[in-house]
Amino acid sequence: MAKNFVTRQENYSEWYNELVVRADLAENSAVRGCMVIKPYGYAIWEKMQAALDKMFKETGHQNAYFPLFIPKSYFEKEAEHVEGFAKECAIVTHHRLKPKSDGSPGLEPDPSAKLEEELIVRPTSETIIWDTYRGWIQSYRDLPILCNQWANVVRWEMRTRMFLRTAEFLWQEGHTAHATKEEAIEETEKMLNVYAYFAEKHMAMPVLKGTKSPNERFAGALDTYCIEAMMQDGKALQAGTSHFLGQNFAKAFDVKFLSKENKLEYVWATSWGVSTRLMGALIMCHSDDHGLVLPPMLAPIQVVIIPIYKTPEQKEKVNQEAQNIIKELKEMNISVKYDDREEYKPGWKFNEYEFKGVPVRITIGARDLEQGLIEIARRDTLEKESISNVGASQKIKTLLDDVQENLYNKALSYREDNTRKVDSWEEFMVEIEKGGFLLCHWDGTPETEEKIKELSKATIRCIPLETEKEEGKCILTGKPSSRRVVFARAY
Amino acid sequence: MAKNFVTRQENYSEWYNELVVRADLAENSAVRGCMVIKPYGYAIWEKMQAALDKMFKETGHQNAYFPLFIPKSYFEKEAEHVEGFAKECAIVTHHRLKPKSDGSPGLEPDPSAKLEEELIVRPTSETIIWDTYRGWIQSYRDLPILCNQWANVVRWEMRTRMFLRTAEFLWQEGHTAHATKEEAIEETEKMLNVYAYFAEKHMAMPVLKGTKSPNERFAGALDTYCIEAMMQDGKALQAGTSHFLGQNFAKAFDVKFLSKENKLEYVWATSWGVSTRLMGALIMCHSDDHGLVLPPMLAPIQVVIIPIYKTPEQKEKVNQEAQNIIKELKEMNISVKYDDREEYKPGWKFNEYEFKGVPVRITIGARDLEQGLIEIARRDTLEKESISNVGASQKIKTLLDDVQENLYNKALSYREDNTRKVDSWEEFMVEIEKGGFLLCHWDGTPETEEKIKELSKATIRCIPLETEKEEGKCILTGKPSSRRVVFARAY
Repeated sequence: MAKNFVTRQENYSEWYNELVVRADLAENSAVRGCMVIKPYGYAIWEKMQAALDKMFKETGHQNAYFPLFIPKSYFEKEAEHVEGFAKECAIVTHHRLKPKSDGSPGLEPDPSAKLEEELIVRPTSETIIWDTYRGWIQSYRDLPILCNQWANVVRWEMRTRMFLRTAEFLWQEGHTAHATKEEAIEETEKMLNVYAYFAEKHMAMPVLKGTKSPNERFAGALDTYCIEAMMQDGKALQAGTSHFLGQNFAKAFDVKFLSKENKLEYVWATSWGVSTRLMGALIMCHSDDHGLVLPPMLAPIQVVIIPIYKTPEQKEKVNQEAQNIIKELKEMNISVKYDDREEYKPGWKFNEYEFKGVPVRITIGARDLEQGLIEIARRDTLEKESISNVGASQKIKTLLDDVQENLYNKALSYREDNTRKVDSWEEFMVEIEKGGFLLCHWDGTPETEEKIKELSKATIRCIPLETEKEEGKCILTGKPSSRRVVFARAY
Repeated sequence: MAKNFVTRQENYSEWYNELVVRADLAENSAVRGCMVIKPYGYAIWEKMQAALDKMFKETGHQNAYFPLFIPKSYFEKEAEHVEGFAKECAIVTHHRLKPKSDGSPGLEPDPSAKLEEELIVRPTSETIIWDTYRGWIQSYRDLPILCNQWANVVRWEMRTRMFLRTAEFLWQEGHTAHATKEEAIEETEKMLNVYAYFAEKHMAMPVLKGTKSPNERFAGALDTYCIEAMMQDGKALQAGTSHFLGQNFAKAFDVKFLSKENKLEYVWATSWGVSTRLMGALIMCHSDDHGLVLPPMLAPIQVVIIPIYKTPEQKEKVNQEAQNIIKELKEMNISVKYDDREEYKPGWKFNEYEFKGVPVRITIGARDLEQGLIEIARRDTLEKESISNVGASQKIKTLLDDVQENLYNKALSYREDNTRKVDSWEEFMVEIEKGGFLLCHWDGTPETEEKIKELSKATIRCIPLETEKEEGKCILTGKPSSRRVVFARAY
């Protein structure tokens, strides 16, 4: 176990915070609620971006870029949206600093450079984008518009945690415009599936697909689809959302098109996004008391090689073997790091890469090598094995696939073990303390959901898409219900 | 010539503005000075990013991400830096909106949510990054730090032009930390060479490498290296800068390290950046009165194929031929678009792709095809040629290389034709009106440079790195000078 590293059992929350910093992923900055994403953390984010961007393009989307600032009045145009987003935000009021007027050292905003209308640093870009789309759309021929943007956004959160909830965060936001309701709903579902595929395949993180209850919907959406994951403390984490926005933004920003039937109609909209929050999910889903655990598909370093030798002759032989393996791994597109620094001891390196979650470690020891052996260790199970140096790279490729699959299966088992049906309120209040997903009947009203939240701190994480109809009674009110929904405490 | 499109001769500035909009690259947004980068423009920027990012990584750099907001006090720490950057900037003063207190509809900043210290939206990130580096650096073992950041920045420019000068723009900023002065200077020069290589090889845009005179230096730098390009109106455009920052920021933010000799020393710094301004340079360097001209290495669509047919049988044959060519081009990693839309006529398509600067157009006409012929047209010279459909893809690959090279050579000839030595003040005032680069002697004082700028609107673009020593007299003061510098009017 890493030195002085708190365990998940002792304090899950502290374990997470320490892990983020000690694994060199990120740190808090001097600016309240804003983090610095360090190179190792950013390299993981870049791998996420690359994979998602490829999928967006394969599904016909193009990237574009819209302004960071949104005029205050734009938020006032969509009634629900302003409620949800324009409250806690960063407001730009001036555009110039000047020396302090009282003659003391330092600068102050210049009163003569006060903006006529305040600008809001975007918390999300529906308003500015739909204001722009008005100019892009005249007829059905201009539709669909399938744009995505990679950007930073700011929401003035009171309590922040690195990656999970920060004032500034990085994300992508897709904003599409369609001629029909059906097409927009199809797009909303398509992107939910892209997110679910990414979470399960690349992040090795099983997710439930579902829709949100009205209370938890995106401000301005008619329907919010989401993917929900379970963390190792049994809490839920919303990993991505895809919104069917109906014609709300088209109406607020007057975006109409001439249909094939020559009629002027409002355009249908969707928006969908995932953020650096996924980094938090990735970290919390797989890591252990020895540090970070990364799925091979997102690991910046997939394999690390550590040499052990004493004499110059041994060094020469070990180096040569390392170069052979590196060459073969690179040909298979496996990213490999050879750490032959002499100022650090092998034991120090073992701890370092274990803590940083490198999926596979190869140790090439001079004495083992004389017998044609090298040692491979997998990060997920911490198992070690001596194998022949002949054909090692093929074995390592298989091992990486195996680690990826094992992480997924482990997380899936955990979720299954911590998902249970609950049918009474007494049972609910007991079970919710244990964590996990509770499948319960709910009477479908916002009031009941609110009451349950008040009493238990649990919310409806989603109404699962893949679920069976089942008659039952609401756990709180006893009113009739036709299917179970997922309750949990959440990040 | 494109319909109603102003020529460069008539009005170069209007030609540029119109080109940007009509080629679907960008448009002004509702937010003063901020642009929307449209998908076609953004696709070019993505190609620039990918190429640069690869070169940064090949030279040992890693990406990271630092906060958008910088506390006001940080700017006060480096005296020259604050002069240069903290004047015209976006200032965040509040973090919450509330309903207007006079009861009228709408929102206003909540006085109870006024920030204790104002936050500046980053105009550049030296201050926040060096404040962070203090925590990362203890000993020489922690050096060098070679970080880059892709980000948006804001400078409150009074007069803006899309890509060339906007309030918000996208860029990359490299920030490195070194143990010695020599190493920092070597890094500064290395990155200048990366920029020059990118400009010449990828953008097909010849550049002069040089250093800035003290007047034109980055605020806080000891030396600023730059690449300068010439646009088609003879004006200069600074395309990238690389700064040797000495120990200024280390001193301002107290960043010291324990050297190998066990002495506590201040860290040496560099920073370097290029921005979406490169898009403006690319557009202005090559385009013509028919629209955009793109070098193949940065064109989102390198080849467009347009079919011409009348009967269904002809359509079938043309389609088949197109698919053959597409397959072969894709195997060569050439990006190709097949525009077989029936709602647009071939003539309309010709104009469209010509205006959008697609380097090579293939027309597959049913009647030509009967004779085994297809037509290829190159955008740079507008030349057309009928070639055999057999082996066409290899010919197209060669043609793309040829277009890339020709664009570079054309721009280089233009620059050479418009660069001249000038030895007297009278001549200078005549020649500067004609545009171009004037190679002149200068007495080396900021006062003289300032005076020349006042009288002629020309500035010293750079003191070229590759230049011969030559004794002479300053064009304005007649004082002795030992080498010529480059004067021009600039964007």
